[in-house]
Amino acid sequence: MTTQTLVAEIKKKKSFLCIGLDIDLEKIPPHLLSVEDPIFEFNKSIIDATHHLCVAYKPNTAFYEAYGLKGWSSLEKTIRYLNKNYPDIFTIADAKRGDIGNTSSMYAKAFFEDLKFDAITVAPYMGKDSVEPFLAFQNKHTILLALTSNAGAFDFQTKKINEKEVYKHVLETSKSWKNSDKLMYVVGATKAEYFKEIRKIVPHSFLLVPGVGAQGGSLQEVCKYGLNENIGLLINSSRGIIYASKNKDFAEKAAFAAGVLQHEMEPFI
Amino acid sequence: MTTQTLVAEIKKKKSFLCIGLDIDLEKIPPHLLSVEDPIFEFNKSIIDATHHLCVAYKPNTAFYEAYGLKGWSSLEKTIRYLNKNYPDIFTIADAKRGDIGNTSSMYAKAFFEDLKFDAITVAPYMGKDSVEPFLAFQNKHTILLALTSNAGAFDFQTKKINEKEVYKHVLETSKSWKNSDKLMYVVGATKAEYFKEIRKIVPHSFLLVPGVGAQGGSLQEVCKYGLNENIGLLINSSRGIIYASKNKDFAEKAAFAAGVLQHEMEPFI
Repeated sequence: MTTQTLVAEIKKKKSFLCIGLDIDLEKIPPHLLSVEDPIFEFNKSIIDATHHLCVAYKPNTAFYEAYGLKGWSSLEKTIRYLNKNYPDIFTIADAKRGDIGNTSSMYAKAFFEDLKFDAITVAPYMGKDSVEPFLAFQNKHTILLALTSNAGAFDFQTKKINEKEVYKHVLETSKSWKNSDKLMYVVGATKAEYFKEIRKIVPHSFLLVPGVGAQGGSLQEVCKYGLNENIGLLINSSRGIIYASKNKDFAEKAAFAAGVLQHEMEPFI
Repeated sequence: MTTQTLVAEIKKKKSFLCIGLDIDLEKIPPHLLSVEDPIFEFNKSIIDATHHLCVAYKPNTAFYEAYGLKGWSSLEKTIRYLNKNYPDIFTIADAKRGDIGNTSSMYAKAFFEDLKFDAITVAPYMGKDSVEPFLAFQNKHTILLALTSNAGAFDFQTKKINEKEVYKHVLETSKSWKNSDKLMYVVGATKAEYFKEIRKIVPHSFLLVPGVGAQGGSLQEVCKYGLNENIGLLINSSRGIIYASKNKDFAEKAAFAAGVLQHEMEPFI
């Protein structure tokens, strides 16, 4: 998907909501556990109930890998369902991959060609040649970890190299990489005040923002500092939406929770 | 597997060789492509031919994910074959994972509990709470990226925070994490002179060393600076061993290439 299509969808739906599909069998409604593929059935219901309220879905691959082959199959079915039924939805494999060049190429092939995701999250630690293989794919997007929403972000990301934080070096350095126009960045909502600084370095890029809701970030604060001429934000919520209810009304309650966020976003578009 | 068992195996086999199982269908002998599961058959032959010359195998998960469900199934079969037939071999999932706490727990479950790997490689960018979930597992090992063997290592890893390189901060900081005795570190062989400095920070830890062979590192140089009282090194070679021949003698040629490295290691034990 091109960035233009994503922006058009945001304007059409008046939403820049991304829904995280982080599926834990212990958290989904118990009545689903008896069907053949509970994870896929859960995802399908959530997607059917919320697709008009969001512009992106983001399955976190860890939650699928944890169930081995069956989990990987549920992930495949989910992305194929999305691509077939809702081709205008932006799909993100939250995989946080990154390895030496030839290995990153294999990951890119897995997620962009085989599974046909529009985007993947990638870790920056191994530098340029671990990220550029992802950037080589047409109309695909690489979402680089910059400033994450967890406590451990302060271990290295906010430490200073020559008076400037590591995450700012990541942002700046990545702009020099080949096809850097295909980069987006992960920036946690728990640190809204950082968005002002980040926008100075990457004014035009899309930022994927986890941490709103369950992790305590504020949508208003993020929008205040993070919005750009193309909106430029994808606000992710996972648990707050998909686990809004453990009963048979789970999809309906998820749609309600997604609707609340979409409603909050509407004035900004 | 405990570290003591690993050290005992090293001494018994007079080898600290790790063989990387990075399987690319375009590089394996063409006659295998007609069997039902070429990747597993290839791995099985390589393992049967080389297990007495090495102490560890390291499948890189990217190469399996690239083939979707079939690839994931080949990975499962490979690790189960290893655990069943060669339980004294140390197994490493080269997955370079790392995410917020609850997500890292899912990855740890996938690789330690479901697949029963002894170790996994993990990226440090997200800090303490992204790594500690892996460290909570008994007799399992977490191999943290410190200084990698690719050109991109110089983008961030060797930059200085308060006069000290980022990778040294990673080494030092990680020592304060809970169960840090279960940490090992990835240190690329292409920078042998760095080992002296690294050993000052982590004198007792095992280092997993890629980059010998295809990537240009020297075994002699690495041993000179990297060995410790328990050997403390796992030297990885992938392509130089597994792709030593594309003919029917591939397993035999792989054993020969592994034997050359084992022979070079013998005097150091």
